[in-house]
Amino acid sequence: MSQGMNDQGINNQDLKSKVMIKIQDDLKKIEDSLKKNLNAQLELAREIAGHLLFGKGKRLRPLLMINCAKMCGYHEKAESVKELIDFAIVFEYLHAATLLHDDVIDEADMRRGAKAAHKIWKTPKVILTGDFLLARSLSIATKTENLKIISTISHITEEMAQGEIDQLNQKGRLDLSEDQYFEIIRRKTAVLIEGACKCGALLANASKEKQDALFKYGYHLGIAFQMADDLLDYTSDAKTLGKNPGADLREGKLTLPLIKTLQRAQEKDKNKIEKIIQAQEFNQTEFDELVVMIHEYKGVDYTNEKALEHVKNAKACLELFESSEQKELLTMLADYSIQRKV
Amino acid sequence: MSQGMNDQGINNQDLKSKVMIKIQDDLKKIEDSLKKNLNAQLELAREIAGHLLFGKGKRLRPLLMINCAKMCGYHEKAESVKELIDFAIVFEYLHAATLLHDDVIDEADMRRGAKAAHKIWKTPKVILTGDFLLARSLSIATKTENLKIISTISHITEEMAQGEIDQLNQKGRLDLSEDQYFEIIRRKTAVLIEGACKCGALLANASKEKQDALFKYGYHLGIAFQMADDLLDYTSDAKTLGKNPGADLREGKLTLPLIKTLQRAQEKDKNKIEKIIQAQEFNQTEFDELVVMIHEYKGVDYTNEKALEHVKNAKACLELFESSEQKELLTMLADYSIQRKV
Repeated sequence: MSQGMNDQGINNQDLKSKVMIKIQDDLKKIEDSLKKNLNAQLELAREIAGHLLFGKGKRLRPLLMINCAKMCGYHEKAESVKELIDFAIVFEYLHAATLLHDDVIDEADMRRGAKAAHKIWKTPKVILTGDFLLARSLSIATKTENLKIISTISHITEEMAQGEIDQLNQKGRLDLSEDQYFEIIRRKTAVLIEGACKCGALLANASKEKQDALFKYGYHLGIAFQMADDLLDYTSDAKTLGKNPGADLREGKLTLPLIKTLQRAQEKDKNKIEKIIQAQEFNQTEFDELVVMIHEYKGVDYTNEKALEHVKNAKACLELFESSEQKELLTMLADYSIQRKV
Repeated sequence: MSQGMNDQGINNQDLKSKVMIKIQDDLKKIEDSLKKNLNAQLELAREIAGHLLFGKGKRLRPLLMINCAKMCGYHEKAESVKELIDFAIVFEYLHAATLLHDDVIDEADMRRGAKAAHKIWKTPKVILTGDFLLARSLSIATKTENLKIISTISHITEEMAQGEIDQLNQKGRLDLSEDQYFEIIRRKTAVLIEGACKCGALLANASKEKQDALFKYGYHLGIAFQMADDLLDYTSDAKTLGKNPGADLREGKLTLPLIKTLQRAQEKDKNKIEKIIQAQEFNQTEFDELVVMIHEYKGVDYTNEKALEHVKNAKACLELFESSEQKELLTMLADYSIQRKV
């Protein structure tokens, strides 16, 4: 796959514009609801959570939930649409809660093009704001009084928490396998996205078949999305990315491009790479050299191919549904997941 | 009230023994369930959570829930009792989750007579273990499929998270009022205890009147319990307490004995105390001097009186219930809450 073109040959920028036009109304409602639901709360949480929430977030998770619900025939009475949005923000809050704790844990400097929260506020406040957002999410979920939805949210939080611990335990491990990588990114990213898509189906009282299809769509999209993220950490630049590339490596996190490179590399190159991983420190020249190796050993190509497979699988899950504006958007989002620059 | 005697004139040690005899069967089941529910989980979480969970915990919260449920007529079929215990541990997990994050936030050295978890494991692991225990609690709660119970647990987590942020914001504030103190300890301690008692009533399908009575019982007990804790921080010693006394002061937390002393102190003494609070540092002589002042200005007596009022109110809430073994225990626990040494 040539980067910048999807398999229908649509240009990256065009795809982004098309997606943006389709989502702009929902996006505005999401922003309003995110604010409203924090306004009633504490000043500090609003400030810290707001720094992250109203940065450059893509709102992918609430948008997915809303569009899955609508595609499944969720009725658009004025008040119910409002409820849909108010519930959808759970997925942005959960995401933000994880990012806040992650950034503390990884001692990250940057997030979404701005300083990471714990670089502005003291760590305790950031930890507690994460706790607060998690609690707030569960509170909003509980208000649906829908046991399947509550159970989905509760399952998400447990899987994500376990995933975080797993990831931490596996930091710096040179022998991380491809399977272990996929299990990490499933829990880290796909669990929340598949949960958002499934909740959309649940809110619309869709059939079990449709629930499962959207759950799978979310799984494949989430995996593809995270793989694209992991690729960008080697192929993008700080300005585009909103944080320094090479962050994963600096944090001892092995991702697929590097795992594949290590598998394929000659002894000499392998040793060089392993040294960098173990030191968790490198200069620009070393990083550039590493990036060249990742390209040469086709770590990038392999990751791209695998990600594309997941995009195809995601789109295949939508075949069950009749044509609709939402189906078109969900298809575009699948393509966009691996074509984005940030 | 003379310390060491309750209003029925029972000796402290006697009361403790009587309580211990009554709870020993449930206590064993709680310990088993706490272990079983972690065993299925990750090694790290088990290790860190276990350090705290299997330290010197009093298991007050699950015991309260179990006894409230039984007092409300929860049927003791073999399998349902097991379920009761398995659900009751939610309140110990929630408590442990808060303690883990608290200790990181307060940079506490000791907890329950042992090193605080983050002094043994790195902070990130402790934060994630807290997240995991919280998620696990919600997962267990969701499995009850009882919306009122789920909603109670979700309310507890939100209130506690907000309370933690409030407390952090008010650290070191010299003008903390008595009302603000009570609001802090309500969220910090009473919310979880009143929730545990209410859930006991809910599990037994008790009347709204009984639910409310047990909720109030838990509130008053929780407040009294925390006041006793705050007193011990000035009146106990490191060996008995399992952590260094004066910890609250060192962390900039004003509690009622000190708030009252500040209100009543002469200008000179007030200035001396305020200096210590602001510096958050003091030597043993300064601390001993402070303790003398807190006694002289009757900060200890005032706190004791207020705590005793809450114990009386807690016991009054039990009047609604017929005599039973559980009622007797709940009455004893109310007395014990302010008589304990640790």
